[in-house]
Amino acid sequence: ISFYLQDLFFPTPGVNVTTAIVLPGTNNATMFGMVAIIDDKLTEGPSIDSKLVGRAKGILAFDSISNISLLASITLELEGRDGNINLLGQNRAPDPQREISIVGGSGEFRFVQGFATLRTHSLE
Amino acid sequence: ISFYLQDLFFPTPGVNVTTAIVLPGTNNATMFGMVAIIDDKLTEGPSIDSKLVGRAKGILAFDSISNISLLASITLELEGRDGNINLLGQNRAPDPQREISIVGGSGEFRFVQGFATLRTHSLE
Amino acid sequence: ISFYLQDLFFPTPGVNVTTAIVLPGTNNATMFGMVAIIDDKLTEGPSIDSKLVGRAKGILAFDSISNISLLASITLELEGRDGNINLLGQNRAPDPQREISIVGGSGEFRFVQGFATLRTHSLE
Repeated sequence: ISFYLQDLFFPTPGVNVTTAIVLPGTNNATMFGMVAIIDDKLTEGPSIDSKLVGRAKGILAFDSISNISLLASITLELEGRDGNINLLGQNRAPDPQREISIVGGSGEFRFVQGFATLRTHSLE
Repeated sequence: ISFYLQDLFFPTPGVNVTTAIVLPGTNNATMFGMVAIIDDKLTEGPSIDSKLVGRAKGILAFDSISNISLLASITLELEGRDGNINLLGQNRAPDPQREISIVGGSGEFRFVQGFATLRTHSLE
Repeated sequence: ISFYLQDLFFPTPGVNVTTAIVLPGTNNATMFGMVAIIDDKLTEGPSIDSKLVGRAKGILAFDSISNISLLASITLELEGRDGNINLLGQNRAPDPQREISIVGGSGEFRFVQGFATLRTHSLE
């Protein structure tokens, strides 16, 4: 399964607010201490207007004092599928590719194991 | 194992304060962005005065902009048992029955796997 | 693998700030409701000046109304190793020894399973 995560950290006010920055953090450079809750679109293609295939919901916590890295505890909900996939792992933004672990699932995704591999398509 | 989780989101002030709403959220309808920390009673029966069989401790994060859903990262401590069960998963409040994954345990519950199935008994 | 976690909850201001207390909690005795984000040193010996062997990054949430206990969702990064180990579990500070579950890993630590056993060396 492959899709694009549309994470809008700095949305146009009132439009597409799928990220709530619930804690501001204590460090401007690395955002250490920042916590966000997301309900992001997963799309088929890189454009945010491409077909919606699901949503990623959960918590992101910026937990590095030396670079931009975040602990992600998120659930994937996929359109037309019954159940969720739960992911937990560290996401070091500077790395071109990152893995975060599948730690469980429900419904169709009971007992699923493995990894989600993340690549950054674009930062705007 | 079956029991009732006594989650008191809106307790009488000063009484039975087992939920700390640590972040208020940004959306009144779905509570998106709200974060609570709980130390809830687990009871044998549906009444909060029935026999205490354990506690559920951890974090609840409301992470949906379209309904009331929360990411639960909680530990179950059961009376008379040595060790904990760790749960992580999405809990969509509108669904009559939800599953959240067991992601680990300690003591007696080392290497435990499977699911906790949640049903809403009553909302008051 | 064994090492010492240098958790500095009350650092000298401006020095060694590896813990951000992002939420203050609602209970002075047990710190119930407190949330911290850490980027702590892991050292070879008990002294904070001993050899750095890695870092522990993630979230600690104090979730007990009866003692000092915290839910830890952390990632271990070890020097010279490619990948992370993800831990999730309850850490009851009064217990002399605690276990928290390994719930996943990446890189070299893909599919790692088991436990991290914690002992308190000293509280200062």
